[in-house]
Amino acid sequence: MPGGGPPAARHPVAEQLPLVLATAACTALAIRLLDRVRQGGGLVRGVLALLCEHVRPGAQAAAPVVELASPGELEAAFAQRGCGLALAEGATPASEGQLLEAVRLILRYSVRANSPYFFNQLYGRCELASLVGDWVSSAVNGNVHTYEVAPVFTLMEKHALARVARAIGPAFGASHDGLFVPGGSLGNVYGMLLARHRAAPGILLEGASSEPPLVALVSDEAHYSYLKTARLLGIGSAHLVSVETDAAGAMLPEALERSIVEAVRAGKKPFFVGATAGTTVLGAFDPLPALAAVCAERGLWLHVDGAWGGGALFSQAHRHLLDGCDLADSFSMSAHKMLGAALQCAVFLCRHPGALRAANATSAAYLFQPDKLHADLDVGDKTIQCGRKADMVKLWMLFKSLGDAGCAARIERCFALSDYAASRMRSSGGAFVLAFEPSCTNLCFWYVPEAMRPLPPKERLDKDHPIHQVAPAIKAAMQRGGHAMIGFQAVRGLPNFFRWVFPSCVGVEECHIDEILRWMSVFGEQHCLR
Amino acid sequence: MPGGGPPAARHPVAEQLPLVLATAACTALAIRLLDRVRQGGGLVRGVLALLCEHVRPGAQAAAPVVELASPGELEAAFAQRGCGLALAEGATPASEGQLLEAVRLILRYSVRANSPYFFNQLYGRCELASLVGDWVSSAVNGNVHTYEVAPVFTLMEKHALARVARAIGPAFGASHDGLFVPGGSLGNVYGMLLARHRAAPGILLEGASSEPPLVALVSDEAHYSYLKTARLLGIGSAHLVSVETDAAGAMLPEALERSIVEAVRAGKKPFFVGATAGTTVLGAFDPLPALAAVCAERGLWLHVDGAWGGGALFSQAHRHLLDGCDLADSFSMSAHKMLGAALQCAVFLCRHPGALRAANATSAAYLFQPDKLHADLDVGDKTIQCGRKADMVKLWMLFKSLGDAGCAARIERCFALSDYAASRMRSSGGAFVLAFEPSCTNLCFWYVPEAMRPLPPKERLDKDHPIHQVAPAIKAAMQRGGHAMIGFQAVRGLPNFFRWVFPSCVGVEECHIDEILRWMSVFGEQHCLR
Repeated sequence: MPGGGPPAARHPVAEQLPLVLATAACTALAIRLLDRVRQGGGLVRGVLALLCEHVRPGAQAAAPVVELASPGELEAAFAQRGCGLALAEGATPASEGQLLEAVRLILRYSVRANSPYFFNQLYGRCELASLVGDWVSSAVNGNVHTYEVAPVFTLMEKHALARVARAIGPAFGASHDGLFVPGGSLGNVYGMLLARHRAAPGILLEGASSEPPLVALVSDEAHYSYLKTARLLGIGSAHLVSVETDAAGAMLPEALERSIVEAVRAGKKPFFVGATAGTTVLGAFDPLPALAAVCAERGLWLHVDGAWGGGALFSQAHRHLLDGCDLADSFSMSAHKMLGAALQCAVFLCRHPGALRAANATSAAYLFQPDKLHADLDVGDKTIQCGRKADMVKLWMLFKSLGDAGCAARIERCFALSDYAASRMRSSGGAFVLAFEPSCTNLCFWYVPEAMRPLPPKERLDKDHPIHQVAPAIKAAMQRGGHAMIGFQAVRGLPNFFRWVFPSCVGVEECHIDEILRWMSVFGEQHCLR
Repeated sequence: MPGGGPPAARHPVAEQLPLVLATAACTALAIRLLDRVRQGGGLVRGVLALLCEHVRPGAQAAAPVVELASPGELEAAFAQRGCGLALAEGATPASEGQLLEAVRLILRYSVRANSPYFFNQLYGRCELASLVGDWVSSAVNGNVHTYEVAPVFTLMEKHALARVARAIGPAFGASHDGLFVPGGSLGNVYGMLLARHRAAPGILLEGASSEPPLVALVSDEAHYSYLKTARLLGIGSAHLVSVETDAAGAMLPEALERSIVEAVRAGKKPFFVGATAGTTVLGAFDPLPALAAVCAERGLWLHVDGAWGGGALFSQAHRHLLDGCDLADSFSMSAHKMLGAALQCAVFLCRHPGALRAANATSAAYLFQPDKLHADLDVGDKTIQCGRKADMVKLWMLFKSLGDAGCAARIERCFALSDYAASRMRSSGGAFVLAFEPSCTNLCFWYVPEAMRPLPPKERLDKDHPIHQVAPAIKAAMQRGGHAMIGFQAVRGLPNFFRWVFPSCVGVEECHIDEILRWMSVFGEQHCLR
């Protein structure tokens, strides 16, 4: 392993040893005692002891980010320990010991998304307060559809939504409707669904076949969930117009205007603009004031997909990136991304109170009885789900734990880490070449092996250039060694480039960035020697 | 409190006291030690200690099922302890102590869905092995869209789906496609979506406005999520036909046939039959072989909503209720209902491999790179979500922990408890009157105060009869006293009646049923004295 593996934890294990041993002894004693009196208790204690150690910040940094294993190797590993992954016909109950062993193996072979070496996706390194909030909501086995079964969660949802609405701006702060939804993609579904209902309310009753074709517009860098949503809602992918973006990946308002005019000329009815605040790959922010002006003039619904970049709202230093978002009709944000909430924790907000109920309510008699206590507080009829996990607890605990200044500091640290990595790349003498100017905390770049330097300008690059093979080779080597995980992709006709994003900075230091850059260069050169 | 409150725990607290104290002392010591070396660790230890006590089976039975509080009372309770529910502008970080206090209040004021007195919904009393599985997946912060970030969860999903598919029958067992989805309602969305794609594949591209109206058919007792789905998909509620049911609430095949013929005559295109295995209120099972025959003849997609009754598949004694489900095209089941998995844990299965990808895949370049390791195992492109919580761990742990015989025993015990309660009602001399013959584990009944006995036959009852007020009054009294929670509703033109369902039997004994019946009669009579 180059560089001797991941760096030691900030508090070396030796320093903590007496404490760790004392704790371990206590926990072990507790487990033994409880095992004797009741079934299940030992499992709970045992698993909690494992989890306590697993989420210890030092433990995450010290362990490999992944112990790469093929499906066959995983099946064998579980089977060898007496807790095979397959669920065979006629299976007998596993012992408590076997279940504990299974948990150990899950923890061992799952990717450590909380490691300071995990940057593969737009999530990672959740805040501990948010994680324990998730554990609490699971222990309660709480379902959030009626106040009577979820009194605390119902109020927490109200307050957490209000907090995000205030961050969006005064208009959302003053009046809004909203929900926690299972993921940012569903947030976009709600946005387009409410827009469709405003534009063509007859669809609820008569369906879309009675209506002229509706047209939704998003940028050509927008998330693929807009495409899935257009299909789901019966709008059709041909009626999802990809609007041209500038070199940085932000939607061009004049191109939007043009696309709207074209659609109207073709006898279609534009109804929805899906803007993006922080695109998935480039981290671009669409120019919301200009888009809002177009939407206002044309009577279109403006939804802002802030799944990724929405976190910037919580820092005075960076919230200008989302200027104009308070002009939108609806907004979605994944708090499990830049805010560091535990997965899954996504918010959908709409500026128009009552809009969710108007589009979705069915007033099911068995659930939303008007004659039960506090029936007016039932939120379940706003959703396309019925039962719903109490995701709001994760964000409520996070807000409580960090306070406003703490949230801001976390966001600013993400940007600072990204700046640091970018400056290292810029001063690398052509070893690391930025494919795009950084935006949000996204760095898109190539590692250029010495034999390929200098890299031609990107206008002359395509997938036939040998640089296309480098990022996959480096990534695979880092995965095999458990060093780090960082995603790559080939978009805009370019050869594969890395996308290094900084979602949640918890436990990430500059030294981790240095190490990752070093590994990339080592593995990049090794690739060329083959 | 009548009867002196909930019964004592099976292992009286006194018996366990030395062990509890030893454990508490160890945990407290561990917390103190760890607090000194790192922030966050104390919170984790502290919360885990609270959770360990909270989920102890005896603790659930001994505590009130709910400490009823209005929103104002809850706000005050949290504020008084220094951890107000509101998230004020400029909030400072809460201390570890305040966060722990907040967790204590969440646990105190949330409804105890794991109590043997909670029968308000179709979930409750989850298996501890499933709960710890949920905790583990949260600790991992795992996201299930690509194999590379979720190797273990991807394989667990495959095996858990295969286990449910085998339970459905040999056809599903031999070949299937599937996903864990956030709730049974979404399972119905997937069913109707795949059916729409088979019937009118052009909608993906061109949208529904280019197609003749599609018609979906479900029984008049089907879940309201079918209605939400018909709206969501742009089919329209007018094109969701409610097919007549028999007295027990099961769809009449001849009525289905009639409705299909009518729709075709009206120039519409029937494409989907949404059957129900265990209706929400009455627990009725639609006659699947007859419905499958109609669907086969007419070329319609048959989806079975087994969200509630699907659990019966896991018992040889009761699986006949779902005879014919292997003939369906798709099937959904909420394992957090009768199987006792922790919330949320819902399965969608389709008999046609590749169907999910055909309807949903977009091959997003940034996520589903074909040139990364094990890319062929990525499941994320099947979904309408992008990121997805690892719900499969909860079912995998449950299956492992119980084994096949254990699963069957749990299901059979749910039915036995329901039978016991029904027999108590039948021999109550008119105090409890069944509104319907029991089906699944659903008991629909009235408590009839002495002054209203004998209750007229239900054909002569409506919402003007004073019995309409009795269930809400009893329920409110039981909530105020924290005795029990059982739902009521007014459907089929009848006055409010209780629906007592038995989802997951963990920790429920006949004595709990006796107590609840006694409380109902006490509060029912009190209502009449007012």
